[in-house]
Amino acid sequence: MVKVAVLGHGTVGSGVVELFTKNAKSITSRAGQEMEVKKILDIREFPDLPYADKFTKDFNDILNDSEISIVAEVMGGLSPAFEFTKALLESGKSVVTSNKELVAAKGAELLAIAKEHNVNYFFEASVGGGIPIIRPMHQCLAANEITEVAGILNGTTNYILTKMFHESVPFDEALSEAQRLGYAERNPAADIEGHDACRKICILSSLAFGSHVYPQTVHTEGITKLTLVDVEYAASWGGVIKLIGRAKKQPDGKIIAAVYPAFLSSHSQLANIDDVFNGILIRGNATGDVVFYGRGAGKLPTASAVVADMIDISKSNCTSKSLTWKDSNADNVADYKSEALSFFICADLAEGAQKTVSDVFGEVEMLSRAGQPEGEIAFVTPAMSEYELEEKLGVLSNLMKVKSMIRVLDY
Amino acid sequence: MVKVAVLGHGTVGSGVVELFTKNAKSITSRAGQEMEVKKILDIREFPDLPYADKFTKDFNDILNDSEISIVAEVMGGLSPAFEFTKALLESGKSVVTSNKELVAAKGAELLAIAKEHNVNYFFEASVGGGIPIIRPMHQCLAANEITEVAGILNGTTNYILTKMFHESVPFDEALSEAQRLGYAERNPAADIEGHDACRKICILSSLAFGSHVYPQTVHTEGITKLTLVDVEYAASWGGVIKLIGRAKKQPDGKIIAAVYPAFLSSHSQLANIDDVFNGILIRGNATGDVVFYGRGAGKLPTASAVVADMIDISKSNCTSKSLTWKDSNADNVADYKSEALSFFICADLAEGAQKTVSDVFGEVEMLSRAGQPEGEIAFVTPAMSEYELEEKLGVLSNLMKVKSMIRVLDY
Repeated sequence: MVKVAVLGHGTVGSGVVELFTKNAKSITSRAGQEMEVKKILDIREFPDLPYADKFTKDFNDILNDSEISIVAEVMGGLSPAFEFTKALLESGKSVVTSNKELVAAKGAELLAIAKEHNVNYFFEASVGGGIPIIRPMHQCLAANEITEVAGILNGTTNYILTKMFHESVPFDEALSEAQRLGYAERNPAADIEGHDACRKICILSSLAFGSHVYPQTVHTEGITKLTLVDVEYAASWGGVIKLIGRAKKQPDGKIIAAVYPAFLSSHSQLANIDDVFNGILIRGNATGDVVFYGRGAGKLPTASAVVADMIDISKSNCTSKSLTWKDSNADNVADYKSEALSFFICADLAEGAQKTVSDVFGEVEMLSRAGQPEGEIAFVTPAMSEYELEEKLGVLSNLMKVKSMIRVLDY
Repeated sequence: MVKVAVLGHGTVGSGVVELFTKNAKSITSRAGQEMEVKKILDIREFPDLPYADKFTKDFNDILNDSEISIVAEVMGGLSPAFEFTKALLESGKSVVTSNKELVAAKGAELLAIAKEHNVNYFFEASVGGGIPIIRPMHQCLAANEITEVAGILNGTTNYILTKMFHESVPFDEALSEAQRLGYAERNPAADIEGHDACRKICILSSLAFGSHVYPQTVHTEGITKLTLVDVEYAASWGGVIKLIGRAKKQPDGKIIAAVYPAFLSSHSQLANIDDVFNGILIRGNATGDVVFYGRGAGKLPTASAVVADMIDISKSNCTSKSLTWKDSNADNVADYKSEALSFFICADLAEGAQKTVSDVFGEVEMLSRAGQPEGEIAFVTPAMSEYELEEKLGVLSNLMKVKSMIRVLDY
């Protein structure tokens, strides 16, 4: 019998407790022994729940309970989640979490503490909700040099972009709809400004490339500036716009890491991932592209990833010494502007200046849309660094007022 | 230092040896120690290879080498692969394999032998090539009751169907093209008759539901009877035709397992998996649908899955006691005809008989195509068992000559 505890009885936490009841039989069978939730930490009271007697408001009740060997931290936020996790690992308990903010900010430190105390710190649920991604990436792709990771990592923004793309709903309206449906928070900044996707790509790239990529080193743009005009041009180009978090290892070993909206060809395996779904692409030197797709959030999907981590710890006496990465200062991250990409540009153009654009940019792919106003130009550039793009746009600044610049990615 | 051996220096075997050289650094880092290929079994000679001295023609050289702890069986076929694997497991060596034919035919027996001798028998490479599927399914979905598994499991047939669908190339021509490109064997029966997909769904369903599903109990249809007419109707219905291997747990615990071509809506996450790619959908009671996508075959993708299994064994002293399933007689498999599905029917119809069709089938969805000949009728039925379908077709047998029947699946 393995006894576990849950920190936080919110959406994910209550899902974890629910799964231990609902899927008890298969959990016992997979773990090779029974598992029981012994204590739940929450400052609120839940007197009507059948398991009301398991609740405590005192973290020390869990920390000092020697019967509890595994704890799920599903509180979210940095503090006190960090202090609690640290204390638990130091006391010899393994911790699993769905807290992407904490893993992105403190992963290297907590993994080192776990290793030192011969316990595990697992975080499958921190990326992609119920999609198995951390463990497959670590384990099954072990024989592979991972060269690139990219994904649709945030369900809220993907829902908004899907509404904009398939139903021509403007951004503000699509956001309101997402809030009405409970897909977006009342304060949606973490989603729509790209911070949530940023935390997830930090975790994925730290694991893929072995050194901690911190959120503040990752260039992050959200989707708030996207318009239906951009969407129309993306369609006329033969693609879609998705918010992509990506990390790519350069030949010099440094990592290009960024979050921004991007044009993707409609043939891309990420292009048809719609609504609140997530999809993550791992590019390896042996496997080629492998894509994982599923519900990136939600009570039971996320809880199932938390419980799977707990089962994994319970059935193994060995700690996973290799599911880890080194700490870093910012010098593992390369300047994202140095990467050569194509760019979508939409601009107001002075009369007769189109030839100058071609002269400056070389062979561009011109795009058009229904009802395109006189003087609006839209095109996709050849591949160049972002510095080169800025220089060329500078040359044209008297002739062209840029309304949109969106990067074009090749997945 | 872990020493390993490779049985068979064909496509996959030579890929395994290549990866141990090419990705040596990351393999050492993931495994926590160096790994070396000590011996390779092949009846052929490869005097020009830099590692020519590792070859042996005598299996006993490997069986009796106490330094070798892990062996990759990548010979294919049932015999002598079965006898070799059995002897290795009994001698205390772990075995990993890409041999789907052997796992589908003898998995339960070999897993039991492995367990008895406290070693591992791993087979990640047997399904989906380089796509991590066996381990994620087993491990990360542990907290989940899996209710259904379905997938595009054979790259050759998917290539042919993609040519038929996107380029209107008839089956025979598409097959020749696949052979020319090396995607199909000179004797393509195992692929186009569905046997390869059948072996893979046997492995997936055995693992998902815990009792061995044997190939001979799985209803298997290939794609040889599909025509461009079927393809046109699928498109007009709003979907595609894919060869699907599937297994579904029924409320009574029995498994519906089958391989056949099916109509899928173009919104399905399996619909856009084209060319030689594979995609596998796992439906769970907590995660919902999770899809894994990538190259289902090929030298390095498959080799990377073999090597990942070897790394996994090398870094753990614990054997995986739960990656296993029980043996069975055929009574774990339900009658596939009892499942209620919709069906696509294309037939020649006697003049004026359309009303009778509606009377017999109820509300059908009529389909049309460009150049549809007089007297050809095509429709999708409401959901019913296959027995009910046969009965209704029997009633209409004097009025209607069925040219195609294709099942409609809802993924």
